[in-house]
Amino acid sequence: MKLLELIDIFGVVAFSITGVFAAMEKKLDLFGIFIIAFVTAMGGGTLRDVLIGDLPVKWIRTTNYSIIILVSTAVAVIFNKVIRNLQRTLFVFDSLGLGLFTIVGIERGLYHQLHPGMCVALGTLTGCFGGVLRDILLNTIPIIFHKEIYAVACILGGTVYFILLKTGLDNYTIVIISILVVFVIRILAVRYQLSLPDIYKKTTRKV
Amino acid sequence: MKLLELIDIFGVVAFSITGVFAAMEKKLDLFGIFIIAFVTAMGGGTLRDVLIGDLPVKWIRTTNYSIIILVSTAVAVIFNKVIRNLQRTLFVFDSLGLGLFTIVGIERGLYHQLHPGMCVALGTLTGCFGGVLRDILLNTIPIIFHKEIYAVACILGGTVYFILLKTGLDNYTIVIISILVVFVIRILAVRYQLSLPDIYKKTTRKV
Amino acid sequence: MKLLELIDIFGVVAFSITGVFAAMEKKLDLFGIFIIAFVTAMGGGTLRDVLIGDLPVKWIRTTNYSIIILVSTAVAVIFNKVIRNLQRTLFVFDSLGLGLFTIVGIERGLYHQLHPGMCVALGTLTGCFGGVLRDILLNTIPIIFHKEIYAVACILGGTVYFILLKTGLDNYTIVIISILVVFVIRILAVRYQLSLPDIYKKTTRKV
Repeated sequence: MKLLELIDIFGVVAFSITGVFAAMEKKLDLFGIFIIAFVTAMGGGTLRDVLIGDLPVKWIRTTNYSIIILVSTAVAVIFNKVIRNLQRTLFVFDSLGLGLFTIVGIERGLYHQLHPGMCVALGTLTGCFGGVLRDILLNTIPIIFHKEIYAVACILGGTVYFILLKTGLDNYTIVIISILVVFVIRILAVRYQLSLPDIYKKTTRKV
Repeated sequence: MKLLELIDIFGVVAFSITGVFAAMEKKLDLFGIFIIAFVTAMGGGTLRDVLIGDLPVKWIRTTNYSIIILVSTAVAVIFNKVIRNLQRTLFVFDSLGLGLFTIVGIERGLYHQLHPGMCVALGTLTGCFGGVLRDILLNTIPIIFHKEIYAVACILGGTVYFILLKTGLDNYTIVIISILVVFVIRILAVRYQLSLPDIYKKTTRKV
Repeated sequence: MKLLELIDIFGVVAFSITGVFAAMEKKLDLFGIFIIAFVTAMGGGTLRDVLIGDLPVKWIRTTNYSIIILVSTAVAVIFNKVIRNLQRTLFVFDSLGLGLFTIVGIERGLYHQLHPGMCVALGTLTGCFGGVLRDILLNTIPIIFHKEIYAVACILGGTVYFILLKTGLDNYTIVIISILVVFVIRILAVRYQLSLPDIYKKTTRKV
């Protein structure tokens, strides 16, 4: 499963860096930047583990994640301008990470024998709620609540996962395909600026 | 206990719809509206279960609540204008729900053999903290911290519950009376615009 | 261990009063003020217990903390002006409490056989995240993310704790010294307005 471990690391790195950039926009100090990076990368999985009762949360039992996030934060702060020029690469990692985190969340739900719908919800939460917690800490309304369609990619990827489960494909193939579904939808959504149907026609957004 | 199940459902519906309205005021998209509705309805009970350690939280083990909230959200978004005209009915459901959630929280505390004062605190938290989490996600100071006396109704209703426990009345009667106490206090508070004593005399509120 | 119990109480009192002052600045009502005081004093330890899975959280199993916080809140609201003149005393208690809470968090981590780095992280979280939750509830960006160096004092004090562990000193002495390290660093930081290195040179802070 070396490929998945690699995606996991790249995902954590990309999520952390997103956090660093958001924190620097609010002029936080180094400690604040690190905490925001950490929350962005680990927040979704942490909330999932707390709600399920898988405690202690996984990042407390190992130093691996903390070290990855610490290094990512340092690099993103020091080589800020260089990394800002790698937006496209970062976006690819971020989207792959989103896909992986979603599937990890789903499989955690399956392990606890939850309903498929709940598994997809847990997967979405794993992928998306790091960003929600980041935005709350930065005192803004979470961006996925009014702009990006992050969550829809997770929900569709998760649904594909359950459809594939019935085909008898081996688990590894199913996981890879589902991650790619999340990845592709996210890429297309940003490329073509897709958003959920606007229910406030002819009004201006005030957020 | 069919009556209590009915109140539970009506309460969840009313809390969800409150969440939908608050989310629409901030112009959230459909995903954001659903999450806010969910958090408003389930947030208090979720926080209670996490603090006590009753994990996984109950709404993960069943799809019932998610479906009720999903349907309530859809109806509230589609028939927005109609439902806004039902404010009074909604308010009745909301207040009954507040009463029930409070008592459910208290009984969960009793089950864990907590001190009566802590049980009342847990009941209040169950009834009120969905709204607190909703307001945090919507980036405003929780309304019950400076305006509504939501919490006082829960605390008084919870106190009545423990007084009645000593009378030897059967549990069902005690529960119904306590719910009604919360309900009536809430109705009176809104009707007569009761609020906690103002400790900032002669100053203007700046929230 | 009577000294440590005393520091614990004084710490809770000081943290609560900090919460009361912050809540009154936002013109919250009495219920809101109490909740903010409670969250400031208990929030860090609560988050730590939830992440580790030490549930129910400790303040639910006893009424002691709630009573201390309730009394502190009442006193701080009623004798507001008097207590504002005791800023220096409060600051001493607050810094001692910060030290104690940090060490308590570390020892909880050790009990769960966590890595020293994670123990220090848990200690810092125990000391600092009450204030973070307070600021989130009051709808501002947590102050320790951009201004105060609260966290650095915890991290250094925690590091000293682990260095002393290797000296073979008895536990009580190690705890007292570590608390004093946190205390002194905090005092010096405020006295000489120390802050983390500014990474936004020649720009104005906009927070």
